[in-house]
Amino acid sequence: MTKLQVLLVAGTHGNEINGIWLFDEWKKSSFLINTYGIKTCKVIGNPEAKKAGKRYIHHDLNRSFKEESFLFINSSNFEGGRAKELVNLYGEAGENPCQIALDFHTTTASMGSCLVVYGRRYSDLALASLIQNKLGLPIYLHESDQKQTGFLVESWPCGLVIEIGPVGQGLLNSRIISQTKLILESLMEQIHQIKNLNFFFPDKLIIHRHIKSIDFPRDEEGNIDGYIHSFRQSKDWQELKKNDELFFKLNGEIIRYEEDEPYIPVFINEAAYAEKNIAMSFTKKELWDVKKEWKQSLIELVNQK
Amino acid sequence: MTKLQVLLVAGTHGNEINGIWLFDEWKKSSFLINTYGIKTCKVIGNPEAKKAGKRYIHHDLNRSFKEESFLFINSSNFEGGRAKELVNLYGEAGENPCQIALDFHTTTASMGSCLVVYGRRYSDLALASLIQNKLGLPIYLHESDQKQTGFLVESWPCGLVIEIGPVGQGLLNSRIISQTKLILESLMEQIHQIKNLNFFFPDKLIIHRHIKSIDFPRDEEGNIDGYIHSFRQSKDWQELKKNDELFFKLNGEIIRYEEDEPYIPVFINEAAYAEKNIAMSFTKKELWDVKKEWKQSLIELVNQK
Repeated sequence: MTKLQVLLVAGTHGNEINGIWLFDEWKKSSFLINTYGIKTCKVIGNPEAKKAGKRYIHHDLNRSFKEESFLFINSSNFEGGRAKELVNLYGEAGENPCQIALDFHTTTASMGSCLVVYGRRYSDLALASLIQNKLGLPIYLHESDQKQTGFLVESWPCGLVIEIGPVGQGLLNSRIISQTKLILESLMEQIHQIKNLNFFFPDKLIIHRHIKSIDFPRDEEGNIDGYIHSFRQSKDWQELKKNDELFFKLNGEIIRYEEDEPYIPVFINEAAYAEKNIAMSFTKKELWDVKKEWKQSLIELVNQK
Repeated sequence: MTKLQVLLVAGTHGNEINGIWLFDEWKKSSFLINTYGIKTCKVIGNPEAKKAGKRYIHHDLNRSFKEESFLFINSSNFEGGRAKELVNLYGEAGENPCQIALDFHTTTASMGSCLVVYGRRYSDLALASLIQNKLGLPIYLHESDQKQTGFLVESWPCGLVIEIGPVGQGLLNSRIISQTKLILESLMEQIHQIKNLNFFFPDKLIIHRHIKSIDFPRDEEGNIDGYIHSFRQSKDWQELKKNDELFFKLNGEIIRYEEDEPYIPVFINEAAYAEKNIAMSFTKKELWDVKKEWKQSLIELVNQK
């Protein structure tokens, strides 16, 4: 018997409610999701923020998983305490140890269904390649962004974020719920296959590697004074050419793309990112070989005794 | 000289930010909106809720304009106080009196651009008919709904709500901003025409009259346990036939439309209405004569000395 247990998290952001809703229904009808016999722990990441109808109470929970945060836990840092609690409960060395964390998010950007991988951990890339091979999803590799750190999944040996959009904050949507269910079951199926040593890895992985984020145009006081140009709205994953429209200012000024390289924008107009000074992020599309070490890493993790 | 002054309100709900943004830009560039020389007062309805990124602090401001609310103003009723303040500042008998109130909202429902009229006040219907004639917008006549009262515009002699969607809460969208600007300018143009006695009323008005609202399916504890069916999502203004799909429950059950009459649904899946137990509202489409009294009422109001 392997000790494998998978942590499933919904509502890491309290106003991303489709995953929470699916988990609630799953609790009522245990047959709702096929987990292929894999043991899972289901948890609502930030139940307090859910109750308040907000992304978070004090700090973004999905930026709170870092050692420093755990040292400064006080009454004005609810999320620091919650992050520590989740690690104590479900971390690799926790009370109810999980080896893989799957964190279900939604976005107001037109990202469709995609996976987000943080850094280049072998087992993450291996699992992502299996899902991309099965469902054809794009993978956003988030790395080298000093301003954005402390993601939940990084506190587990292997972990992926699932992002699905567009859907407004606090809004249930049938399509988003179906997509969440499909990816969740596909992930469980692939992990099950790995457990049975009965898998099929692709040779190549298509990665959209994070290059940088750009902010909205802002006035002297720091207020946003231009919005996403109508030609760019909902055009996530579509390559930019020099002089393409990015932002529109009401005084008629158009702010254009000035890079020579044809980067690909993602998270265009995600409502929660305005406060992080992110209007969209640029990525570079790359084709990577799926390496033997990646596969080994995932196979070993899943089959640990 | 007439004493006419028009109150323009954005952000009556703090997370409906497109109108707020337009007003902010307008403040910076006074030429941005053509008001056809009509005097206006621009105000952010609920600036505290805007700061907090929420619809409201304690109560929905757009249900707080009733005499009873004004009697019980205390520290846990921010919106009651704010409603009273707005009436004192801009009411017909206020410090800076306005006769017409235009209240700019957005919705997560796919309502396109539309007007909401509360009850059957003559001047409201007259102004709405001019806009419908010019822009072809649908008009939702909200009446006979005891659970929903105390709307802002009802505290002014004439007032309309402008609803534009779909857009997520807290999200700027170029299309929504353009639509807001267009309707605002059309309203000012029509009021200007009335002032110059140089108007053209249509003979007929198409009204979508409120019949009733229906709630989401809920479990024993009152939690929502079914969502808008994918066939119904984003199908605002489209007539229902008996047995049409309304809701989907994850156990596979489909809840269908059982009325004999072909009502027309509006505000399907407005995120803020789940707490009001409204999944959608049913309306009946009616063709009304534009009456002489309506026109007289508006002409007199606009040309008061």
